[in-house]
Amino acid sequence: MNKFITFEGVEGSGKSTQVKLLGEYLTRNNIPVLLTQEPSGTPIGRKIGEILFNRGHQAMCPETELFLFCAARAQHVREVVWPALKVGKYVLCDRFSDATFAYQAAGRGLNPDFIQTINDYCAERLKPDLTLLFDLPVETGLQRAGRRDDLLKDPSSADRFEKEKLDFHNRVRQGYLNLCSVEPERFRVIDASQTVDMIALDVRRHVLGYISRQS
Amino acid sequence: MNKFITFEGVEGSGKSTQVKLLGEYLTRNNIPVLLTQEPSGTPIGRKIGEILFNRGHQAMCPETELFLFCAARAQHVREVVWPALKVGKYVLCDRFSDATFAYQAAGRGLNPDFIQTINDYCAERLKPDLTLLFDLPVETGLQRAGRRDDLLKDPSSADRFEKEKLDFHNRVRQGYLNLCSVEPERFRVIDASQTVDMIALDVRRHVLGYISRQS
Repeated sequence: MNKFITFEGVEGSGKSTQVKLLGEYLTRNNIPVLLTQEPSGTPIGRKIGEILFNRGHQAMCPETELFLFCAARAQHVREVVWPALKVGKYVLCDRFSDATFAYQAAGRGLNPDFIQTINDYCAERLKPDLTLLFDLPVETGLQRAGRRDDLLKDPSSADRFEKEKLDFHNRVRQGYLNLCSVEPERFRVIDASQTVDMIALDVRRHVLGYISRQS
Repeated sequence: MNKFITFEGVEGSGKSTQVKLLGEYLTRNNIPVLLTQEPSGTPIGRKIGEILFNRGHQAMCPETELFLFCAARAQHVREVVWPALKVGKYVLCDRFSDATFAYQAAGRGLNPDFIQTINDYCAERLKPDLTLLFDLPVETGLQRAGRRDDLLKDPSSADRFEKEKLDFHNRVRQGYLNLCSVEPERFRVIDASQTVDMIALDVRRHVLGYISRQS
């Protein structure tokens, strides 16, 4: 099938906007597509997301965080991603397994071998065929995240991840870049410090190039 | 330390009542004790429990259920159980790892070897020192659960587990009995079809016997 495309990057890298823009573009060009996201791609996943991002949950252990993301992924893969891939749709997914390695292994320091074991199980060995990594300095990303409307109205509304220190976000960014270096054929690194329009052009170029090589 | 005592059994086996009665008894006898439960032994665990027991979540996959229980256990062990054991308290816990093997392996059919792997990780290899299994025919247990006040007022308020078929509950019961046969030295099987008072006497006898052998 080879139609599973994931979007990854640190906070404020603009990937969610780009998922939407690419989805609209592919739909206009009659390419069947499903847009989804983790952890909130199912009703149960949205409830799990409320626990994960709740800024009051400062006591949450890294291991709890890992299992909650895996729970959301197990549900999402079985309820949403596989069914869409099986009817021939392209699936554009805002965050997937790579985020678990970047955030919970590189960021939180959990054992990547253990993460590999439980991720293979929760994702039913589903792997992205193409992954767009939106890379930019974390300071720039966090400033952008901070300019979001809800954060402007109430700065204390930053979620549990946005509240993390710069150091954490730098480890996450480096974690993503390390994943790229291990699987360069799957990843496309996009300069996310550009304007939205320029990034959208890069995204289309990479994705159309990938699709044309598939057909 | 050897002070971690767990209470296990099918729905309506009366174990939660017995945790409370034993806790009161030990406290009256100046034995320091902490009463807790899974998945709801922490604030984060209570939110996870709301997702797990929500009777609207019929779409939940067995794998999602497994990871949610593990998330709650990871938090509970680190935030509540270890700290209490470290200050010398007896910890009486309503459900722990055995429930995961009984419900998610025997009940749902998930791979017990995989459950063992992730349970060792989420529980930090913490194992109960003594486990009381409240055993009774599942029909009796479900009738008792059905007589609970909230269920009497609104029978449709049965949670996602209480709504499962008899067959599921029988597999869970058999799963518990199989765990006993593998580790007979850790388990005490209690006839939970007796009256509350008779069960409470059995519980005290087993626990006081255990404590006296420790000291």
